[in-house]
Amino acid sequence: VYITNALSDFFFKYETPRQVLVRNRRVGVVCRLIQLGVLAYIIGWVFIYEKGYQSTDTAVSSVFTKMKGVGYTNVDGEERVWDMVDYVFPEQGDSSFVVMTNYIITKGQKMGKCPELTEPRYLCNSDSDCERGIIERTGHGHMTGKCVGNTTKTCEVVAWCPVEDDHTIPDPALLMSAENYTLFIKNSVTFPAYGVKRSNLVEGIDNQYIKSCVYDPTTSPLCPIFRLGDLVQLSGFNFATIAKGGAIGIVIDWTCNLDYDQSECKPVYTFHGLYGNPNETDMARASVGYNFRYAKHYMEDKQEKRTLLKVFGIRFDIIVRSVARKFDIIPTLTAIGSGVGIFGVVSLAILHILSGISKHTESQVAYSIS
Amino acid sequence: VYITNALSDFFFKYETPRQVLVRNRRVGVVCRLIQLGVLAYIIGWVFIYEKGYQSTDTAVSSVFTKMKGVGYTNVDGEERVWDMVDYVFPEQGDSSFVVMTNYIITKGQKMGKCPELTEPRYLCNSDSDCERGIIERTGHGHMTGKCVGNTTKTCEVVAWCPVEDDHTIPDPALLMSAENYTLFIKNSVTFPAYGVKRSNLVEGIDNQYIKSCVYDPTTSPLCPIFRLGDLVQLSGFNFATIAKGGAIGIVIDWTCNLDYDQSECKPVYTFHGLYGNPNETDMARASVGYNFRYAKHYMEDKQEKRTLLKVFGIRFDIIVRSVARKFDIIPTLTAIGSGVGIFGVVSLAILHILSGISKHTESQVAYSIS
Amino acid sequence: VYITNALSDFFFKYETPRQVLVRNRRVGVVCRLIQLGVLAYIIGWVFIYEKGYQSTDTAVSSVFTKMKGVGYTNVDGEERVWDMVDYVFPEQGDSSFVVMTNYIITKGQKMGKCPELTEPRYLCNSDSDCERGIIERTGHGHMTGKCVGNTTKTCEVVAWCPVEDDHTIPDPALLMSAENYTLFIKNSVTFPAYGVKRSNLVEGIDNQYIKSCVYDPTTSPLCPIFRLGDLVQLSGFNFATIAKGGAIGIVIDWTCNLDYDQSECKPVYTFHGLYGNPNETDMARASVGYNFRYAKHYMEDKQEKRTLLKVFGIRFDIIVRSVARKFDIIPTLTAIGSGVGIFGVVSLAILHILSGISKHTESQVAYSIS
Repeated sequence: VYITNALSDFFFKYETPRQVLVRNRRVGVVCRLIQLGVLAYIIGWVFIYEKGYQSTDTAVSSVFTKMKGVGYTNVDGEERVWDMVDYVFPEQGDSSFVVMTNYIITKGQKMGKCPELTEPRYLCNSDSDCERGIIERTGHGHMTGKCVGNTTKTCEVVAWCPVEDDHTIPDPALLMSAENYTLFIKNSVTFPAYGVKRSNLVEGIDNQYIKSCVYDPTTSPLCPIFRLGDLVQLSGFNFATIAKGGAIGIVIDWTCNLDYDQSECKPVYTFHGLYGNPNETDMARASVGYNFRYAKHYMEDKQEKRTLLKVFGIRFDIIVRSVARKFDIIPTLTAIGSGVGIFGVVSLAILHILSGISKHTESQVAYSIS
Repeated sequence: VYITNALSDFFFKYETPRQVLVRNRRVGVVCRLIQLGVLAYIIGWVFIYEKGYQSTDTAVSSVFTKMKGVGYTNVDGEERVWDMVDYVFPEQGDSSFVVMTNYIITKGQKMGKCPELTEPRYLCNSDSDCERGIIERTGHGHMTGKCVGNTTKTCEVVAWCPVEDDHTIPDPALLMSAENYTLFIKNSVTFPAYGVKRSNLVEGIDNQYIKSCVYDPTTSPLCPIFRLGDLVQLSGFNFATIAKGGAIGIVIDWTCNLDYDQSECKPVYTFHGLYGNPNETDMARASVGYNFRYAKHYMEDKQEKRTLLKVFGIRFDIIVRSVARKFDIIPTLTAIGSGVGIFGVVSLAILHILSGISKHTESQVAYSIS
Repeated sequence: VYITNALSDFFFKYETPRQVLVRNRRVGVVCRLIQLGVLAYIIGWVFIYEKGYQSTDTAVSSVFTKMKGVGYTNVDGEERVWDMVDYVFPEQGDSSFVVMTNYIITKGQKMGKCPELTEPRYLCNSDSDCERGIIERTGHGHMTGKCVGNTTKTCEVVAWCPVEDDHTIPDPALLMSAENYTLFIKNSVTFPAYGVKRSNLVEGIDNQYIKSCVYDPTTSPLCPIFRLGDLVQLSGFNFATIAKGGAIGIVIDWTCNLDYDQSECKPVYTFHGLYGNPNETDMARASVGYNFRYAKHYMEDKQEKRTLLKVFGIRFDIIVRSVARKFDIIPTLTAIGSGVGIFGVVSLAILHILSGISKHTESQVAYSIS
């Protein structure tokens, strides 16, 4: 019996605040205006700005790059041509790659014993200077313990001989013609949640167009072929200085509203200089540009030899940022719910404040209940 | 004294709305049902669906891949075997790599002067046609200014000679046997916030199992060894067409609830065709499949030579998506707080509306205060 | 007229609950304390902890790595030195790379016919055992159908001959000296939304400092040069065991509050062992460490040959996690709005409860209205 009573009480009784109907011009106008403002805010912010009625998904993406163009050097009368196989690292068209712009070549290195470079830190007077077990972190080999040389004596090392001397960096860079190379970017994105697959070769970018176009932020913003010189300039660098080594980030932005037609979903390219400008304060302080070493091995007279290249270049990092949005009932309900919630809170807060004000204007109050 | 008074006023006085206790069957039931609905929503949505009582973390992850299998070609009587070292780029087992399925080989290239290909754009009648400084972006070398050839004359270039002729692509692909290669994926994830380390070689995937298993979405969803032909099929492609060049994304999804035992935290593999299907409208329009060039350098008769390979292949991009969840007191309190908030707002809103209704049913109202 | 009346009603009339001014010591104190608590929570949580007044941005980042140090091996009297070109894969200073610590070398392989390894699975008694079309997934070549050998007969294969025998792994690892190599990390981050560019070579990290410093979590937490042995130790591994193959994740964390000076925006390095410890239960079960194969091709006597290396090493994955925050008016307004919302809800809820309590303390109630 008690439980039945409690249940019937729970269901059939409830408490509600006594309402007061207030007639007051100024307060009434203010109250409604605030409510309208809140409503505008909810619709404007939650629905239009933050698109609360849509669900989102990020893409599974694949980037493939291909360089075109040929470089030409003529060092000491030795003509040489550098094609994409020679100047792109790695070769397989990665989203992060390096284009060689300058190099120091050391030919015919083979495993053996030879003296270190004639730099202060390698100099020695007698064998005892070289026997210290402490191997120079930046040395070229394993010290044999001998001090060799005719006039300037240096420690002897087991190393790829002769050791590389990288003190004179060719200036201007040997492959300044890299400015005219072109980069072709192929980017596929798949939004798994919506089953939508897009390519940066969007509608209208056909074989004919690709053959002749070059990317330009205003006239050809969808052409997937970029001139290296343009890329460097768009990221705020100077080609002559970045040729000594630098890095550029290419961001491909896919912000798609899939409530519109898929063909509206197009990439936007932006370019960010990452490092390479000598006027940058960071650079002035403690950096060495971008370079790495690379070797081509070969066999000569039954002995393993290598051609060592110290490669200076521009590193490109292609970063895909993607977000697709599409109408979905769950976020819509959540957005409406939170909108109603905000509206309710604000309305009640206003009434709370107004009821305080109304105390002082009691004469204008007409009771609706009691 | 004034301050003391104000403080005591602040602490000991407060305002509260006058409550009305209403007895009305229909309104009461509706009111309680709405409140129950809101409570169910809060528990169901905030706690069960969105797991608001848990904190989240994404993983630091490492992917290592290893291909197994041997390809065999017999071109013009020259038997050749292709092992993983020959057909995987890059060699070190990256999360993004290419498996060669077809190739065009150009043997014995060396630096020198030779005529360009007999394509319309390289044709010339006299030396003057070649002297234009404009270097063809897609040319193979640096024009010497001479127009050479017996019957069909083309411009002479300094280049890796002879220049590659890639007009006839072997069809069917030379390494169709790639279908039977297997890919082993090793993926480690570490959730730093929870100190949890997991591997895709989960409990039960032992050495014995790995030796014999092959991934199958229904029967062996945790086997880390994938047959290439299966991967292609699962991503919606046809092997014969993707062998001309394409890309596949393999997504490893780690969605883990660490409130359960760690051993419940298992990877889920999904496969997304990125490009490579010729029936795709995109492809029909403007693409060239996936290919890159690669050279093996050697020394012959004291001269640098190279074997150039134009490699067609399938690119695999392994993408790890991870999110781990675990009970945490802070999000729990926040979730409860927001739950109470929503409940409060809705309850008050209902009362607000009901008090409007109750105006018309005044006779049934019993005043609790006054 | 009706519309005008309705409009004027809409604007000039509104409902407000009747307020009750309550004087009750205990209830009043509790009420104010709860309100203060909520206020403290809003300010503490929304503003100070979650920094609700700031917008956030993630960085476009580029990582460049460079190894220094020389390894030395003396196998069967053959002295050999391994420099960065020999032991780092890939060569171009990627954010994900491998440092070789051990290897199995197979010299002078050429394309031809030779017997398989004398392992149980390759053994045969007669040619008929080898003719099965089923190619061993883990075999080294394409079976010719012959069963060859003097004492132990195995199937003959077309392969790179002689086939590699990787049963005896050098122990201890041949390049234990890798412990003393150093890794230089150069990391640039650009926060596009704020136009802020930072490098891990922060203020005070100049050329002079870089030449001598080595990273140490307590004494030199900003030195970008890491000793390999330290990296292994900091990630919880033992060098002798990880030298058989493992993976380490280096996380560079850029959590920057750009309301302070840019120079306060500094990287924090953390290290996570991904795999490589043999005491790990996972490892004991089903893994093979980290290794891959790599070949150096050469031409000898007009025939293509290769030196095959099975490389065991430590893989480093450098992961950049970045989030910058800066004051922004929009999230500030949103945070204030939600703060006011929570405060309002809680205050009303308290009042609601208190009005229930006040029913029982009616004598102390003084009516403010009516």
